[in-house]
Amino acid sequence: MKAIVLLSGGLDSTVLLYHLMSQGYEAKALSIDYGQRHRKELEQARAIAALAGVEHRTADLTGVTQFMQGSSQTSVDVDVPEGHYADENMKLTVVPNRNMLLLSVAAAWAISTKADVVAYAAHGGDHSIYPDCRKEFIEQLGKAIEIADWHTTRLLAPFAEMTKGDIAKLGQALRAPMELTWSCYKGGERHCGRCGTCVERIEAFKLGGIKDPTVYA
Amino acid sequence: MKAIVLLSGGLDSTVLLYHLMSQGYEAKALSIDYGQRHRKELEQARAIAALAGVEHRTADLTGVTQFMQGSSQTSVDVDVPEGHYADENMKLTVVPNRNMLLLSVAAAWAISTKADVVAYAAHGGDHSIYPDCRKEFIEQLGKAIEIADWHTTRLLAPFAEMTKGDIAKLGQALRAPMELTWSCYKGGERHCGRCGTCVERIEAFKLGGIKDPTVYA
Repeated sequence: MKAIVLLSGGLDSTVLLYHLMSQGYEAKALSIDYGQRHRKELEQARAIAALAGVEHRTADLTGVTQFMQGSSQTSVDVDVPEGHYADENMKLTVVPNRNMLLLSVAAAWAISTKADVVAYAAHGGDHSIYPDCRKEFIEQLGKAIEIADWHTTRLLAPFAEMTKGDIAKLGQALRAPMELTWSCYKGGERHCGRCGTCVERIEAFKLGGIKDPTVYA
Repeated sequence: MKAIVLLSGGLDSTVLLYHLMSQGYEAKALSIDYGQRHRKELEQARAIAALAGVEHRTADLTGVTQFMQGSSQTSVDVDVPEGHYADENMKLTVVPNRNMLLLSVAAAWAISTKADVVAYAAHGGDHSIYPDCRKEFIEQLGKAIEIADWHTTRLLAPFAEMTKGDIAKLGQALRAPMELTWSCYKGGERHCGRCGTCVERIEAFKLGGIKDPTVYA
């Protein structure tokens, strides 16, 4: 079985890659450059894929950034919010239709190479602010991907019902290189420890009962 | 009501633009550069949008072409087939997952600008070789687009049940500039008159009972 894994370079998608490999999938990793402020995650994705020994490609979607405005991740005039993930101001981090776009590219690659599945790491904790991490969205888009070609590719989102703590725990069990993963939205040299994704990262290790390998600024 | 219209520069999408304008939509036109061999359609899209007086943008997706190989439209080592559209060899013109990708960008722009609809010109004649022009595909992807954001954008494909002849007839009734549209997949200065899309174009005008304004090579 062949899989295309969307690898952002973050904690969740890194554990996902190791999870699929542990299930016997022959995996390829795809990262997307959509002009995100936190460039570091793309470098980390490359390093993680190299360590895992899987083919890795980065798709340049920077030509599309102009159509995804209004988010702190793609617009220089929107500040990265601090605080807890569930806060109202974290809605500023939502990139319009990001997941459909990323999954479209992954599905194109999967169809071209007759891969069996496209996998992405949407998880339980994302739902409240990210509309395109909802289970309903995953289900509907999955049905569309299945009939986008005569060759059938399925969409897998095995973490859809898991918390970030569960994912960190699984990552440890699989010996995924969590120390190489990148979460911070601020784009500095070290994790800031204060933005929404850093707060969520800290909590994930705490809830999972795992030592946090991250060096915070 | 605001609409984002996918405007390839071909006959169908040009008539669609004029159709939506005639229905009272405030339209914006989106073209996608995915490295297609027939560059001319992008120039024609620009000219058509200018004539219609609507905002027009081209999204550069050439960074994604590497993931859409195996088609005569994106791979230089695959020849453009000649003959009738329904022929087996026309499958070479299928670009893996093209429609989902194009519609993802259109939906991102629609969500960013709070547009009510995304419109594209899939039509009855496309179904037999293009899996992502099927009615089931349009329906499923439409459901995903509706829940991709908290703001609801709907997917419209008003030509889904129409033939190309019907579209040409509607184009004439709406005085759409069909003479500016581009169909040929070969990428020459004039329509070749022999490739699948040229054959289909010739038939469309014939079936619609309309004088073909095209100059063929």
